[in-house]
Amino acid sequence: MSTGDRFSFAITAGHGRARTGVITTAHGKIATPVFMPVGTQATVKTLTPAELEEIGVEVVLANTYHLYLRPGHELVRKGGGLQKFMGWPHPVLTDSGGYQVFSLIDLSRIKEEGVTFQSHLDGSYHLFTPERVVEIQAALGADIVMAFDECVSYPAEEDYVRLACERTVRWAERCRNRLAGLEAHLAAPWPQALFGIVQGGMYPHLRQWSATRTTELGFPGYSIGGLSVGEPKALMYEMLERVLEHLPEDAPRYLMGVGHPEDMVEAVRRGVDMFDCVVPTRYGRNGTVFTFSGRLAVRNAAFAEDFRPIDETCACYACRNFSRAYIRHLINTDEILGIKLTSLHNVYFMVSLLRQMRRAVADSSFDQWAGGFYNKYEPGQTAD
Amino acid sequence: MSTGDRFSFAITAGHGRARTGVITTAHGKIATPVFMPVGTQATVKTLTPAELEEIGVEVVLANTYHLYLRPGHELVRKGGGLQKFMGWPHPVLTDSGGYQVFSLIDLSRIKEEGVTFQSHLDGSYHLFTPERVVEIQAALGADIVMAFDECVSYPAEEDYVRLACERTVRWAERCRNRLAGLEAHLAAPWPQALFGIVQGGMYPHLRQWSATRTTELGFPGYSIGGLSVGEPKALMYEMLERVLEHLPEDAPRYLMGVGHPEDMVEAVRRGVDMFDCVVPTRYGRNGTVFTFSGRLAVRNAAFAEDFRPIDETCACYACRNFSRAYIRHLINTDEILGIKLTSLHNVYFMVSLLRQMRRAVADSSFDQWAGGFYNKYEPGQTAD
Repeated sequence: MSTGDRFSFAITAGHGRARTGVITTAHGKIATPVFMPVGTQATVKTLTPAELEEIGVEVVLANTYHLYLRPGHELVRKGGGLQKFMGWPHPVLTDSGGYQVFSLIDLSRIKEEGVTFQSHLDGSYHLFTPERVVEIQAALGADIVMAFDECVSYPAEEDYVRLACERTVRWAERCRNRLAGLEAHLAAPWPQALFGIVQGGMYPHLRQWSATRTTELGFPGYSIGGLSVGEPKALMYEMLERVLEHLPEDAPRYLMGVGHPEDMVEAVRRGVDMFDCVVPTRYGRNGTVFTFSGRLAVRNAAFAEDFRPIDETCACYACRNFSRAYIRHLINTDEILGIKLTSLHNVYFMVSLLRQMRRAVADSSFDQWAGGFYNKYEPGQTAD
Repeated sequence: MSTGDRFSFAITAGHGRARTGVITTAHGKIATPVFMPVGTQATVKTLTPAELEEIGVEVVLANTYHLYLRPGHELVRKGGGLQKFMGWPHPVLTDSGGYQVFSLIDLSRIKEEGVTFQSHLDGSYHLFTPERVVEIQAALGADIVMAFDECVSYPAEEDYVRLACERTVRWAERCRNRLAGLEAHLAAPWPQALFGIVQGGMYPHLRQWSATRTTELGFPGYSIGGLSVGEPKALMYEMLERVLEHLPEDAPRYLMGVGHPEDMVEAVRRGVDMFDCVVPTRYGRNGTVFTFSGRLAVRNAAFAEDFRPIDETCACYACRNFSRAYIRHLINTDEILGIKLTSLHNVYFMVSLLRQMRRAVADSSFDQWAGGFYNKYEPGQTAD
């Protein structure tokens, strides 16, 4: 469905700093706060679009870097854009490729113009400039696209972080200008909303500076990058608060790469509207499932004769039809259906969690809801 | 759904030797001739039960040998039988394990009592006797079960084939007696239909002898084993005809392990009612799809920018929603959704093919239909 609607965001309720809203795009509406599963290579691993719809997913994320390399953004354009190519006629968001490019940092050369990096597939050299990244995302045709940013690692020296976040602001402006200037044959067939990305490492004044300057440039939405990169949780929440204070109330705020339940609860509490993370699908493929009591390694021998569903309170397809014993058997015997059911359940869990949070905000009972959540939920002790 | 219905078979139409019918089981009815996808380890590889239902699958096959090793038949019994364990509340058929055990022939020792074999997983020794195989299948709880048979390879000496098919008849009788004598706590919670298996290699008189003797023992259905093991197609059809002449008209005939389209057409023409084969899922995982024009290696570079569906005449979920270019991209990037869509399409193709044949029999137009099929369909030239 392409209505041609322009991007908009309307806040529908608030409780404390938490809020609910609706994002409108050319491919449909998104109730926020929202969890976006990651479809790195134009597919949410192991799941069909029909299953994503049944789960209640409203928007998926795809990775610019990966799709640029394979199958190539021009091929996706020829196929009618990501939505048509991947059989997902609903909203799609693409990242900027920055995170992937800078995670190949030893192979990268950063200049004001852009970044030269080597493909992880064949070692070939490629140049990403802010303009190029916008052009690639225009070909991919997502409804929401990201400015090209430099994501610094943790820990990092203040001087370097300052240089990087100043460059990110200059790059954001170049991205905005390039999108505005795209000729008709290069632009996506529907309006694309470009989000600026706030960086600044773990330095509060740099975070504040980055949020303020990015806001001054003016974007329909703002992303918060460079968090959940190994820092203590308390530090992440502190940085988040500093950024959110300096972002406009009337635009969506997207905390990139964050998807652990407790982190999303704390971020929604502070006013974040959008999340994405590979956690549900990656954990699913490792045989670990999320429940409202905490994580469960369903592949463990303890579940060999456990004929209960993953979570007795869950209404997902996996929990309605299959037992822990069966799913464990499938994973044990390398049957794809096993990791598919765990992935499906985990994405359903995240979508349900956000739905509960939206209701709690609408009912002005967020703190009470969060208290109840923490009473039952045991955050995982294992590293990511 | 368990109605407790006993097994029955009713012929509903005939054209030449081809016929349509309905098999009734405790878990539902099966329109014949029927293709049964193979769920070796209690899952049809890459597909959910919901997808199998949408495709129109009415019965799946599971492998006794594999399930005996993992997760173990007693665990499946505790889980409520295969139908409940695998979330497939419809008919299930289990094989006897004979084919797998005798494919480990170098590791096997065959005696009148039974066969000692080594697990392909850990080398441990196991004994399968006819009685034991019936007990295992009772624990698995399938609606249709197979007598323990010796499947000889091709080519094989006449003297050996005679010994093997005589032993198979004696074993069939022992299986029948064991099933009749199972105590309540060992029997499946619903009636199980035991099929005798006709062997006899490529020797017409041994095939005839085996069919006659197995029929004299009296079973609710008859399987034809030891075909499609490397012999020329003409020889297979000749053996098939000889066997079918000597099987009762009023019981279903099941040609084991056969699933290439042209072989099923020829077998239905001669009066076969049931088929199973790993071909659709195995070919699917290799990136090859079946269409009514022949096979297509969708992973080939030729399809990189082909935005048509796998088969424009096909109504399966894959063909309704995705292009060859997208599926090729998924397979190229090792995304599970790729081989899932090809597997789904291939099973849908087989189910559609059998549906077409049932209609052609009902319309008394089977030969005409088959002529039209062969006009378009190009059998694959590649080996299995």
